Amino acid sequence: MKVVALAGGVGGAKLADGLYEVVSTGDLTVVVNTGDDFDLFGLRICPDADTVVYTLAGIANPATGWGIAGDSWQTLDMLGLYGEDTWFRLGDRDFATHLSRTARLTSGERLTTVMDSMSQALGVHAHVLPMCDEPVPTRVRTPEGELAFQDYFVRRQQHDTVTGIRFEGMESARVTPEVATAIAQADVIVLCPSNPLVSIGPILAVPGLRDALLASGAVRVGISPLVGGRALKGPADRMLRDLGHDVSSFGIAKLYAGLLHGFVLDEADAADCARIEELGMRARLTGTVMRTGADRARLAEETLAFARGLRE
Amino acid sequence: MKVVALAGGVGGAKLADGLYEVVSTGDLTVVVNTGDDFDLFGLRICPDADTVVYTLAGIANPATGWGIAGDSWQTLDMLGLYGEDTWFRLGDRDFATHLSRTARLTSGERLTTVMDSMSQALGVHAHVLPMCDEPVPTRVRTPEGELAFQDYFVRRQQHDTVTGIRFEGMESARVTPEVATAIAQADVIVLCPSNPLVSIGPILAVPGLRDALLASGAVRVGISPLVGGRALKGPADRMLRDLGHDVSSFGIAKLYAGLLHGFVLDEADAADCARIEELGMRARLTGTVMRTGADRARLAEETLAFARGLRE
Repeated sequence: MKVVALAGGVGGAKLADGLYEVVSTGDLTVVVNTGDDFDLFGLRICPDADTVVYTLAGIANPATGWGIAGDSWQTLDMLGLYGEDTWFRLGDRDFATHLSRTARLTSGERLTTVMDSMSQALGVHAHVLPMCDEPVPTRVRTPEGELAFQDYFVRRQQHDTVTGIRFEGMESARVTPEVATAIAQADVIVLCPSNPLVSIGPILAVPGLRDALLASGAVRVGISPLVGGRALKGPADRMLRDLGHDVSSFGIAKLYAGLLHGFVLDEADAADCARIEELGMRARLTGTVMRTGADRARLAEETLAFARGLRE
Repeated sequence: MKVVALAGGVGGAKLADGLYEVVSTGDLTVVVNTGDDFDLFGLRICPDADTVVYTLAGIANPATGWGIAGDSWQTLDMLGLYGEDTWFRLGDRDFATHLSRTARLTSGERLTTVMDSMSQALGVHAHVLPMCDEPVPTRVRTPEGELAFQDYFVRRQQHDTVTGIRFEGMESARVTPEVATAIAQADVIVLCPSNPLVSIGPILAVPGLRDALLASGAVRVGISPLVGGRALKGPADRMLRDLGHDVSSFGIAKLYAGLLHGFVLDEADAADCARIEELGMRARLTGTVMRTGADRARLAEETLAFARGLRE
């Protein structure tokens, strides 16, 4: 069974890791959000992609969800001594990822081939693909003005009210051949429990990608990133509220209406099921909080079983 | 007394460190060779300048002469995992130097201002200036073809016979205002015991620099990097031989004839004194091997005393 997962950062990486555990070798493709990508010290940083790759490679820092377990901070500390900004925390081993990626991009390679070969170098046997090769930086509109995503997310700790979101340059982005092929060949497509506005949103905004999903014969299911109306991590709940969306699993499902056949949500949100099914998709209740590796694999397995059931 | 030292890498850095010890705060300017500079992983690496700065800052690795004492190798090891070349050894803290420098150069700053402010950030109160702001990469001609300097020097371990040396783009390089001012105001100019062909040679080849030295009122003295006809470190002796020069302190002095008022050489080379004085400069014998910090300061002090004597 060929599976394509659309994923953002930490929450998405956890489910991707569960799928990696239960899907046969080579049958999983993770399409990752690159709207968070930015340049720092002249290096191209791809936070969501790296979180997914490090997680699948088994080297992610379990305490933070991002970065590499046991990484050190010699380079960043020294950069601080030189007066450089150090609010975006990059570890020494992590720097190697950005250095090698940037050098290869500069030499003319596509982000897709760079990311695929680098994740393979770390022993990852799933394909991790950027949603597109073009930089499409997410900009967050706030009362203080428009902010680069990492400015909003990391430096200002998501304290700003969000009045709008745009993906700069998205009109020129294209679905890559690799993403198009993976979607066309998929049996199941999973929208991971990532932020629908700034993680899954940019992926679905790549021109042609939504149509490719709708054209595929795959069963398409999503998983709510909210539990009891709250995000487990990150600002999804506040963003939804600020932008006038329903802050609930129903609100998430509504954003995906017309796209999904099924939606998985936490048992805490059982009251949302009826309204979700009125959107034209089946709802499935289960525990969606992934504390352990076993939780990830169980949620992945249940999600795939749910999808298989929808096909029949 | 204002002192300008022209220096290459390890040997030059040691004497520069001795001068730093004995010259009053703010009165020492070190003009460093940048012919060894090159790009790696998209970063501008300045080996000689960094060796000088790290040495003056008291953080140089005493075992190697280059790099930072106690530095770690997390970034480089991870780059190796990604299949990148790791023959040029860059430590984690060292990477920060190249990252910050490259980011500032990319933003349009001159190498001169970048290097000066970065060395000040490390607490260095001498001015360390690149010989010019333009990249002028040293190319080494060998029977195997022309090699980039670090290819010859580090990767191929100086095993090739050298049939020629050139400094690419040197015709477009210019003496910087900072170097011109330092030379014009100097009381003593010291050519450090560095390789005359690929360390001091590039500095003297910067268009206008030799004339600036000759036009200055400073006493100009050099120190031989050879002891008993051998280089203490590096390929200076083999290079001199390959290129048909006299492999001796006399041979070094001959390369500087017309430029220097005085030349310091090791007691082991006492036999060279008469011939050196025939070149039109005074010769001074002393111990030139710098094993300890005290050796560096003593050689610096003797060299300056010698220069003072030549002025009177």
